[in-house]
Amino acid sequence: MSPPAVLLVRPQLGENIGAAARAMMNFGLRDLRLVAPRDGWPNPAAEAMAASATSILDDAKVFDSTADAVGDLVHVWATTARQRYMLKPSQTPRHAAARMREVAQRGEPCGILFGPERSGLENDEVALADTLINVPANPEMSSLNLAQAVLLTGYEWFQTGDTTPGEVIPEGKTGPASKEELEGFFEHLIGELDACGFLRNNQHRPIMVRNIRNMFLRAGLFEQEVRTLRGVVSCLVNGRKPLPRDGEDGR
Amino acid sequence: MSPPAVLLVRPQLGENIGAAARAMMNFGLRDLRLVAPRDGWPNPAAEAMAASATSILDDAKVFDSTADAVGDLVHVWATTARQRYMLKPSQTPRHAAARMREVAQRGEPCGILFGPERSGLENDEVALADTLINVPANPEMSSLNLAQAVLLTGYEWFQTGDTTPGEVIPEGKTGPASKEELEGFFEHLIGELDACGFLRNNQHRPIMVRNIRNMFLRAGLFEQEVRTLRGVVSCLVNGRKPLPRDGEDGR
Repeated sequence: MSPPAVLLVRPQLGENIGAAARAMMNFGLRDLRLVAPRDGWPNPAAEAMAASATSILDDAKVFDSTADAVGDLVHVWATTARQRYMLKPSQTPRHAAARMREVAQRGEPCGILFGPERSGLENDEVALADTLINVPANPEMSSLNLAQAVLLTGYEWFQTGDTTPGEVIPEGKTGPASKEELEGFFEHLIGELDACGFLRNNQHRPIMVRNIRNMFLRAGLFEQEVRTLRGVVSCLVNGRKPLPRDGEDGR
Repeated sequence: MSPPAVLLVRPQLGENIGAAARAMMNFGLRDLRLVAPRDGWPNPAAEAMAASATSILDDAKVFDSTADAVGDLVHVWATTARQRYMLKPSQTPRHAAARMREVAQRGEPCGILFGPERSGLENDEVALADTLINVPANPEMSSLNLAQAVLLTGYEWFQTGDTTPGEVIPEGKTGPASKEELEGFFEHLIGELDACGFLRNNQHRPIMVRNIRNMFLRAGLFEQEVRTLRGVVSCLVNGRKPLPRDGEDGR
């Protein structure tokens, strides 16, 4: 399966080519194609910006025309910021990325055209594409920097193949506390709060106990944290003197 | 409803502050907060990069400490590229953006911490946040430029409030062709293909007719395009001389 090619058409600034290569590397794209880069190729300004993505620049292919650069591709998308008045489907980057994943999985090579910084793609270049990509953005300032447009499309491509859950808690060696461990902590805490008189108002006692339970339950405690909390309660109860700080006792 | 605040903690390069402001403007964020910017504030390099987003820089608030900068917020996210070994939920930008939209709709102010370019946030700064954001990216090169991290989180925020359909075809004054219009075209074309002998093989004729139908149906033609195709067929049949080009006949 080949990830989409990134085709920069008549790019003006080497810095943007380098930043685009870096964005490609961030999101697993490899095939960079340059159509008539203004300042020739290779370009030292591109290499300075590419950080550890210079291998993408080294492998970049240079073409004279956009038609040549897309010649071996089966599906071509073109990024555009402005309305082109063509009867051509226009997709969000997210929708387009899902389609790119489908065609790549069928083994059909695809690519994405990005126009020059100042003017964007010419209409005849846009006409080479099957589909447009338009990034939903603030209508008061919808134009994106070239490398940022590459970044967003690369980001969406990568997400279609990524299985990171929306939310995780990195547990390390501990795990979520069981209800038994939590109950042990609550008994300990409430016993001490009875002993010190915090819960002496019998009328309010049941509500206060429930409120205390609720705030700790909402925290979704881990085993290790329950042990820490039991230590906190014991220490507060026993009124131990502060331990010597690290280093002061020779540790 | 307030969009999330963007908090740049000890940012080093003015260029990145400016590019972050531009990314904020692209995606409807307004509240920029700077914690101890290395080169002081205001910073001409930031203004040069911000393009038409300088109003965001003009309104930026500067703080001495991260704790002060988050003081009025109810929910704080922190972007991190590396594992912090803290029992704190870590979310994708997409998941986090959906949560930000929820809290913003409840009127609860929130913000996102971004660390300095070289080192990222210190652990004690990360500890101020409720939740981490980690951008799924190529493990061989997962670190993002500061402004690009702002761009991606802003992009995801904007998408949660955007209703652009995944794919549209901008129709202009035309609309999709009705089956009747398509049938008129097919009758016209097939009649002419019968007349010129293209369909003279009676055994293959039904298959060829279906194949021709299929390719035009897959195109999802618009009314205007059906009229164009009928003109194409008529012109090919009649063998008219080429019309003068635009301009040559005084138009």
